Amino acid sequence: MLSKAQVKYIQSFAHKKFRDEERAFVAEGPKVVGEYLQERPGDLLALYALPAWIDEHTEVMVGLSRRVHVVEPSDLDRISFLTTPNTVLAVIRKPEQPSSPDLSAPCTLVLDDIQDPGNLGTIIRTADWFGVRTIICSASTADAWNPKVVQSTMGSLMRVQVWYTDLVDLINAHADIPLWAAALEGRQVDKLEKPPHILLLIGNESKGIRPSLLDRAQERLTIPKVGKAESLNASVATGILLSQLAV
Amino acid sequence: MLSKAQVKYIQSFAHKKFRDEERAFVAEGPKVVGEYLQERPGDLLALYALPAWIDEHTEVMVGLSRRVHVVEPSDLDRISFLTTPNTVLAVIRKPEQPSSPDLSAPCTLVLDDIQDPGNLGTIIRTADWFGVRTIICSASTADAWNPKVVQSTMGSLMRVQVWYTDLVDLINAHADIPLWAAALEGRQVDKLEKPPHILLLIGNESKGIRPSLLDRAQERLTIPKVGKAESLNASVATGILLSQLAV
Repeated sequence: MLSKAQVKYIQSFAHKKFRDEERAFVAEGPKVVGEYLQERPGDLLALYALPAWIDEHTEVMVGLSRRVHVVEPSDLDRISFLTTPNTVLAVIRKPEQPSSPDLSAPCTLVLDDIQDPGNLGTIIRTADWFGVRTIICSASTADAWNPKVVQSTMGSLMRVQVWYTDLVDLINAHADIPLWAAALEGRQVDKLEKPPHILLLIGNESKGIRPSLLDRAQERLTIPKVGKAESLNASVATGILLSQLAV
Repeated sequence: MLSKAQVKYIQSFAHKKFRDEERAFVAEGPKVVGEYLQERPGDLLALYALPAWIDEHTEVMVGLSRRVHVVEPSDLDRISFLTTPNTVLAVIRKPEQPSSPDLSAPCTLVLDDIQDPGNLGTIIRTADWFGVRTIICSASTADAWNPKVVQSTMGSLMRVQVWYTDLVDLINAHADIPLWAAALEGRQVDKLEKPPHILLLIGNESKGIRPSLLDRAQERLTIPKVGKAESLNASVATGILLSQLAV
């Protein structure tokens, strides 16, 4: 059985401050944990798994045994961030932010204040599908290492760099890369000639992109509306634009 | 102050059985409730609103006053399905399912067992943006009148017909309309000639489309992958395909 202190330690990863101090985050489920185990075992700081999971991953008991805790379902219930706990939970080292972002992919996402963890996670997963290497977020965007975000990235956080910075500074520092903004009114992507690299700016779920940033964009992109919905969900809009821009 | 019986009545709308019996559902927030007030006031069976909301919508006190309950924030807290209650909650009449579905739009969605309420709500909202008139769901798909689904539709449930039926029967009854399926492997939409009407089949979040339905599809559509994510979120994939098919 896990001690109260162990349970409290894991529960503390709900808080950004604690994740920042520990430079670590929590991920759950065999899919995500399995991907880290295969590609970045050194980043697994601690594993809490049911005996059934261990039986299927006996290799961890060789290389990582000091970091593995075999737990009962009742323990997993206490430490899990999921409504229905899975079979394994891992504490994983947060990647270091490199000194400058990798903007070499055809499209780099720039998020101005995305608030919903599910949206952010889905955007990271979609970015990974479309080969986006870097997502740059305003400081007030949801934290990518929040357990709910991690859950909806489905492992893509391992492959996509997520950066937090002042977006005005970023745009100033990379004024040579065209800045295109997703907007309710603008031009359709297929009417435009795609430059080799762009920064694609996506706004907050209800307020959109703040005017001081929108004014800096060289193009406003829109998705043609046939029906009557007032807007599209931020992650759906991002997916549609990436399907047109990232390939 | 609301009575215990009133609070219990509203909380019961969490359950599908109760919603079916009452032929009603709950929606919250000034945007959605405001849209019903404007377009379908007769469907508003009861309104629970803070005084501030009433002050901005004094017209309801003329036409609908017998159905309006002015409540305090503490009351709204007790009946709300939201983490952060808004200013108004409405009990709304569920639309009757017409005797046959309207399949006249260029694209009709067919959902095989979408489970996540947020995904279903986002799909309904996205369908509304792209002019889809009807969404046909397998009986085991999440219920469209679940409060979490209603919340993420952002009012689109008023404009998009959502049907529940046996999908095999549906496909048999409409064998004249081409059935295209979203799949991880298939052809790209821009390589295909679009028929005037199609049924677009979308599968469950983890299992995809069940084989007996997938076998019935005349085409399998895929979204080109550049990066490494294993799959796309169901609502993002639906949005990308609709952006190519519905316009």
